[in-house]
Amino acid sequence: MKALIVGTGAVGGFYGALLARAGWEVAVVSRSDHDTVAANGIHIRSTLGEWTFRPAAVHRRADEVETPPDYVILCTKVLPDIDRPALIGGAVGPDTAIVLIQNGVEIEAEVANAFPDNELISGLAFVCVSRTGPGQVWHQAYGNLMLGDFPSGVSPRVETLADAFNRSGIRAKVVADVVAARWRKCVWNAPFNPLSVLSGGLYTADILESQEGFVRTLMAEICAIAAACGHPLPDDVIDRNIDDTYKMPPYKTSMLLDFEAGRPMETEAILGNAVRAARREGVAAPHLESVYALMKLRELQLERYGRP
Amino acid sequence: MKALIVGTGAVGGFYGALLARAGWEVAVVSRSDHDTVAANGIHIRSTLGEWTFRPAAVHRRADEVETPPDYVILCTKVLPDIDRPALIGGAVGPDTAIVLIQNGVEIEAEVANAFPDNELISGLAFVCVSRTGPGQVWHQAYGNLMLGDFPSGVSPRVETLADAFNRSGIRAKVVADVVAARWRKCVWNAPFNPLSVLSGGLYTADILESQEGFVRTLMAEICAIAAACGHPLPDDVIDRNIDDTYKMPPYKTSMLLDFEAGRPMETEAILGNAVRAARREGVAAPHLESVYALMKLRELQLERYGRP
Repeated sequence: MKALIVGTGAVGGFYGALLARAGWEVAVVSRSDHDTVAANGIHIRSTLGEWTFRPAAVHRRADEVETPPDYVILCTKVLPDIDRPALIGGAVGPDTAIVLIQNGVEIEAEVANAFPDNELISGLAFVCVSRTGPGQVWHQAYGNLMLGDFPSGVSPRVETLADAFNRSGIRAKVVADVVAARWRKCVWNAPFNPLSVLSGGLYTADILESQEGFVRTLMAEICAIAAACGHPLPDDVIDRNIDDTYKMPPYKTSMLLDFEAGRPMETEAILGNAVRAARREGVAAPHLESVYALMKLRELQLERYGRP
Repeated sequence: MKALIVGTGAVGGFYGALLARAGWEVAVVSRSDHDTVAANGIHIRSTLGEWTFRPAAVHRRADEVETPPDYVILCTKVLPDIDRPALIGGAVGPDTAIVLIQNGVEIEAEVANAFPDNELISGLAFVCVSRTGPGQVWHQAYGNLMLGDFPSGVSPRVETLADAFNRSGIRAKVVADVVAARWRKCVWNAPFNPLSVLSGGLYTADILESQEGFVRTLMAEICAIAAACGHPLPDDVIDRNIDDTYKMPPYKTSMLLDFEAGRPMETEAILGNAVRAARREGVAAPHLESVYALMKLRELQLERYGRP
């Protein structure tokens, strides 16, 4: 199978390397790290071992690809100023499956609308991985994927992709309702990511210890929105998220790491889209609305005045 | 008349100096600045002029006062770890009126309960004043006071106090329902103070420009709480607060100045007390609850990890 990874940050570098490890022919589109990746490949330091992923080709843009691959796998962040259809368009042929390994809720429609005749596979990564330099990826923990067709179902192509990942050392699970899986992940992300930033840098354990009630209220609002969108979550989803977080070591969220590094945050994909879904469905979400308004103020401060 | 000012920060230094200017005999309790104030008095740089206020006596503690004064005027911040009755107790005689020139809502009961037989005058300062060093006060703008008996009414002693301030160069207004006046001030303080901190340092103008709707929602919750507490505010109070803030120059709130200087913030007096009143009266205040929870997280971060 041929795959094109678009975006060679931490997520793209890591999952691209895994598919290559499973025997696929994996090319990449790398903008900022192009020359380093073209010369040296991507060095992976992982709980699965240490190796160098040498892509079959290293492009600067998707339209440099001559033959459309079987899978175009988009691994960038989801940010308002990233035009995702434009990023992948040049490499998508009539038989290409588009795969998103990206954060957030309700992030598929933009891509589905731009490529209505292509299969769209939506993927969620549960992974702790970071880019430590150009062409350098450090996989610290976890790594599992959930994969399913958008808006629902599991096609043979999803199975084929999941099989390749499962041969590579991580666990890829296929799910019939990937949209529900996104909401389920959002139950954790919507409180902990923004609260870690707005608190000025608290670990998940501190947040929970101090404001468990507030975290539960935010989680309950996400559950209500998910249900209104046709994706009711299990009754115990909040208790399980709380219990699991108590068992985790103190953890800095990905949004906090972005914030501390001065990188853009996925506020819109994780929180803004949830709030907009609430408004559309007529679900009251005053606590999420408050956190979202505060994140927009925090971003305005960064944009207008920068760090003190 | 004899007055004892307890707390010689910006507010105590300024209003003590004004009473002395009006001819009153004004002593002070000064802890941290005692030696400087005892040696040199308090230097006032003000829009009203520049002069040195030399207190009739400079005490370290209220119980050093030999004869109880006519007025004990408490000018400290309202913070959980400041025992206000203990600060003034030693100087309160049977005929002493206790005056609070302090921020927040529902801050009177603690003092009223400790001194049930004394007149309690509640005062609100609308002033831009700061302590620039030991015994150094800079009065930048405004200065008006609102004064009234707690829980309501205007006694002759309130009038006498207001007259003295009015002779000194600022405007002191007596109000029959000072508790309502506190809620009215809180309509502005409850949104702008915490939002300026949680945003990482935005000016009032930035907050309003970006999140006027959110600010109005928080203001409406304060109005609902005030009404449930028996102090309905005028219908146009929100519009007037918004309009007035648009007319102000970009402004850093007092809570933001405290935050930036590493000083404790009056989160409980301004926001926590409002939220507790909402819970007690059964008024829904989910947006204020969210902002309060986030302020508690922000304070936890500062307490546990300090500034980055």
